[in-house]
Amino acid sequence: MKPFNGVNDRKASTKAPSPGRPRSVELDQAILRAAFALFVEEGIAGASIEKIARRAGVAKTSIYRRWPSRDALLAQAIEAARNATAPGYSAEAVERASAEEFLQLLLGIGEVLAKPEIRRLMTRLVGTVPDYPHLLEVYRKTYFAPRRQAIIGAFRRVRTAGLLPDETDPEVLADMIAGALFFRVLFAPERGDTAADIQVYLARVLRAVGLDMSSIRSG
Amino acid sequence: MKPFNGVNDRKASTKAPSPGRPRSVELDQAILRAAFALFVEEGIAGASIEKIARRAGVAKTSIYRRWPSRDALLAQAIEAARNATAPGYSAEAVERASAEEFLQLLLGIGEVLAKPEIRRLMTRLVGTVPDYPHLLEVYRKTYFAPRRQAIIGAFRRVRTAGLLPDETDPEVLADMIAGALFFRVLFAPERGDTAADIQVYLARVLRAVGLDMSSIRSG
Repeated sequence: MKPFNGVNDRKASTKAPSPGRPRSVELDQAILRAAFALFVEEGIAGASIEKIARRAGVAKTSIYRRWPSRDALLAQAIEAARNATAPGYSAEAVERASAEEFLQLLLGIGEVLAKPEIRRLMTRLVGTVPDYPHLLEVYRKTYFAPRRQAIIGAFRRVRTAGLLPDETDPEVLADMIAGALFFRVLFAPERGDTAADIQVYLARVLRAVGLDMSSIRSG
Repeated sequence: MKPFNGVNDRKASTKAPSPGRPRSVELDQAILRAAFALFVEEGIAGASIEKIARRAGVAKTSIYRRWPSRDALLAQAIEAARNATAPGYSAEAVERASAEEFLQLLLGIGEVLAKPEIRRLMTRLVGTVPDYPHLLEVYRKTYFAPRRQAIIGAFRRVRTAGLLPDETDPEVLADMIAGALFFRVLFAPERGDTAADIQVYLARVLRAVGLDMSSIRSG
């Protein structure tokens, strides 16, 4: 992905930005929020550059100047919203986490997945594939793959810490846990699975992959 | 779901049906095929009763007479197409399968998942959730849940046969394997994962859950 053209933009809007609050960062945020809201409410067909610009209160050129494509904008908007909803689960946060910290993060995921907006976002994103395959492609390469790698690395540290069997395959483990949770959220017996329900289910998943649960409970 | 009103229909279309080929079954099939094709091509918004009737070459009343709702029709159309694409994987077939037969079915799933139309169908179905949550609800209750139960039962038989560890949780196992494969198909590193690629990945998943792989290879 091309970096945002923030420098040019700051040159373009010369209406005395207040010091320490660069105007272009505020604009970036407003555009990302507008793009995300439109995408979740109306789907990709409703999230045109035209409508995003109107909602953010900016000119379309301000968007074209910053993002190489609508897909790049939407992918970043989705990731920014995810990270705002669940700040501990960004790729960077997972990379920094110790084995114990990562397991605590994992145990807290019920709170995140129980939010209805997460289910809505996930289904919106998957639903773009038949008609707009490029968005998931951009999202996958730019955000999904790095986070998956960070999670795989964290599971390696958990294995090294002796909390997972030696023969554990961290890559497959990451996919199985994420996949089982995705299925659960999507096909939960009743709509509105609570955080506690997901938590109980997750504990079964973690036991199934051979995680030493006693070590986490005490952590 | 209400049973189809095939009897009434046979009475209604009295243009000398040839013996042994009941006209209503042919009509059912034509409607199901038209509904599925429109759903996959255009999504749920494009699969109106009006357009399904036109494509199947029937009157709209023929559809209303047979199905209690468009969601019931679409759910059955999806299931019928799935079973036509992968005949061995219906809930009934899985229920009848012995432990060994089920493992052979499982090992053959790469062939099914590598078909682009399966990815397209899955993403279409998930993509209906934000705007038409009822379709997935109908599909889940009528078809997804019974197949999931059949698969869980089959994993129990595999465990009883001594091919899975005693402490295996068949429900969680079914979700983890399905979830990992779903993730793989959706987020595969390159588009067009081959059947062989999926097969290799599946073997890693099955090893990860403790399946005795030697027993299958020889099967």
